Amino acid sequence: MAVGSGDFGTLHAVPGIQLGVAAAGIKKPGRDDVVVIELAPGSVTAGVFTRNAFCAAPVQLSKAHLAVGAPRYLLINTGNANAGTGEAGLAAARDCCQALATLGGVQPQAVLPFSTGVIGEPLPAEKIVAALPQALAALDPAQWERAARGIMTTDTRPKACSRQLVLGGATVTLTGIAKGAGMIKPDMATMLGYVGTDLALSAPQAQALLGAATEKSFNRVTVDGDTSTNDCCMLLATGASGLHYGDLHADDQARFAAALNELCITLATAIIRDGEGATKFVTVDVEGGADAAECLKVGYAVAESPLVKTALFASDPNWGRILAAVGRAGLRNLDIAAIGIWLDEVKIVENGARAASYTEAAGQAVLGREEFTIRIALGRGAASERLWTCDFSHDYVSINADYRS
Amino acid sequence: MAVGSGDFGTLHAVPGIQLGVAAAGIKKPGRDDVVVIELAPGSVTAGVFTRNAFCAAPVQLSKAHLAVGAPRYLLINTGNANAGTGEAGLAAARDCCQALATLGGVQPQAVLPFSTGVIGEPLPAEKIVAALPQALAALDPAQWERAARGIMTTDTRPKACSRQLVLGGATVTLTGIAKGAGMIKPDMATMLGYVGTDLALSAPQAQALLGAATEKSFNRVTVDGDTSTNDCCMLLATGASGLHYGDLHADDQARFAAALNELCITLATAIIRDGEGATKFVTVDVEGGADAAECLKVGYAVAESPLVKTALFASDPNWGRILAAVGRAGLRNLDIAAIGIWLDEVKIVENGARAASYTEAAGQAVLGREEFTIRIALGRGAASERLWTCDFSHDYVSINADYRS
Repeated sequence: MAVGSGDFGTLHAVPGIQLGVAAAGIKKPGRDDVVVIELAPGSVTAGVFTRNAFCAAPVQLSKAHLAVGAPRYLLINTGNANAGTGEAGLAAARDCCQALATLGGVQPQAVLPFSTGVIGEPLPAEKIVAALPQALAALDPAQWERAARGIMTTDTRPKACSRQLVLGGATVTLTGIAKGAGMIKPDMATMLGYVGTDLALSAPQAQALLGAATEKSFNRVTVDGDTSTNDCCMLLATGASGLHYGDLHADDQARFAAALNELCITLATAIIRDGEGATKFVTVDVEGGADAAECLKVGYAVAESPLVKTALFASDPNWGRILAAVGRAGLRNLDIAAIGIWLDEVKIVENGARAASYTEAAGQAVLGREEFTIRIALGRGAASERLWTCDFSHDYVSINADYRS
Repeated sequence: MAVGSGDFGTLHAVPGIQLGVAAAGIKKPGRDDVVVIELAPGSVTAGVFTRNAFCAAPVQLSKAHLAVGAPRYLLINTGNANAGTGEAGLAAARDCCQALATLGGVQPQAVLPFSTGVIGEPLPAEKIVAALPQALAALDPAQWERAARGIMTTDTRPKACSRQLVLGGATVTLTGIAKGAGMIKPDMATMLGYVGTDLALSAPQAQALLGAATEKSFNRVTVDGDTSTNDCCMLLATGASGLHYGDLHADDQARFAAALNELCITLATAIIRDGEGATKFVTVDVEGGADAAECLKVGYAVAESPLVKTALFASDPNWGRILAAVGRAGLRNLDIAAIGIWLDEVKIVENGARAASYTEAAGQAVLGREEFTIRIALGRGAASERLWTCDFSHDYVSINADYRS
């Protein structure tokens, strides 16, 4: 199951970036499970990584390599997360980087490794290494969609997004892919997102733009509240357009940042629309908070409540569960009489109780929609936050009881 | 579904306490849904209540009445929580108290109201009032089991526990009942627990003993992380044994406190064994923490992780999900190499990776049990905490998608 069509339109190639996909047989024979992304010399890469203390071996290695060198290759495998694997896991990730570095004629530090799949199993490095020649032979600028498919695990469909905008008289491209369906509550980035652009960025510029974009996109979605050990989001700036961000007018800089933000939101919400077992795509808007932190507390209390999520699945306007979640979110001195709650255009709670105008039929009409918004007005200040979630269905249980992820 | 037999043995009457049950037709005709508990004059009552900001009208009224008077009656209804009902809800709860006070010849402040069921629907006070004569006519000291059944909602079986102990040469009785199966993560008390004793307690003694007992029992269980709007746990001390707690030797005081603690743990874990859709009863022990707070952070991160809970349902020793939950619990400077994790006697994680001695078959053997312990050693200090949870099954989704609770 998934919400909406999943169509992502044309994926524009990004000059300076090539992608190659191979089937290494990590978990199933014949399935694409290794993706190599090659960057032109001079490209700038920025990354944000999971803050789960048990961060996976490839996350540790990618952070270390990013700190010392200029990445030329990204190596991604599915079917095995190489997390909870200790020193042996780090050695396996290093072996893969070394093999790709040798084939590509670069230093091992120029290769960033990424893994997704089951936690705690030894990484079959030899299978990945054996598939590298096939992936390198397939390198092509037009392989974004196949790469998006190649990084899927329990995803039912690929997630991608592409935008072109004219800045300073030249066309700049932004194209990104992402994967993820479960263990989704990214904390600083999500499970494998890659965004390429041919705009030239300095490393600090790339990091600042990526940090701002992920904070309001990948860091604002939750399927199950479970932050992965392997979350990464990378911005790859080749500079092939000949345009440098620093030379743009402030307006054009803002337009580029906005396009990047919007692309990240599209990818992040694509993950939620394809959340494990999802049948509903729900936006949670919290407004009138004293600060962003308390808006997020309330938003996540609602978005992660199993009782709210099962009511969403049932299309049951059981708004008492939303109210109970707001009440337990831990805000000090919450004045319940100041709180209003809406389902799309239907006001359900006012003055801490059922709105006088509310009817079950009106609530039912909204809950019957495949996509809608829960809006919560706290009446305490001017802060607001938006996040996205999905419902909790029988299929969520089936997927996670049957699948060793 | 539920875990274990649910047998609770003999329920001893508590001198000074009578219970009467009636069918008011609140939600279904002919089902017991109103329980009256009558206390002898001179009884002392202590209570702990939910900290959900949206606390229900009966919770507000019970707290107010407890502050000013000596309770003589407790009035409990199921089928309607009278929460999220604003001023009208408070008025309805007051009407019920007034009616029972008139029939019982006491002040309205001597009646404590309690409600459980759907949130946000108007309380049918007239049905409850009409059933009061039937409940009063049924008052009897031997009705603890029927009362335990009378307060059930999605519970599949009643929860009760009774103990007698000899203190200072006299026999003292402790008998308690509780209900709850979903919206279970009590914060200061659980969904309707009532413990009676014939030991004489002063109000401060009763409050202190109850506070300590609930902290390590009802406040250490979670089904779904959703703290109810209606949680209450009450200690009813009639003094009918003629013995006063304050006159006991320190050893006997400690024995009474231990018996009360043990009884509260029995009731709280009975709620988890009957958690909505539960097929597994799981103890989570966290040890080696710097303080209790971080042990609880880790314990709840594991106990509330949908991915861990679905793996428990599947009897799948997918220990990577436990490790990922520990890693995202938010502990600063967590040294993953110091962490050990066990499933009962089987060590699964050492030095931040799979234990050398671990085998899938050994993990599978533990997960196949109906009851087991997840033990997590943090290696940071001397604090430890224990909490209890259940798995997340298809039936949890069915119950909460189909039932308007």
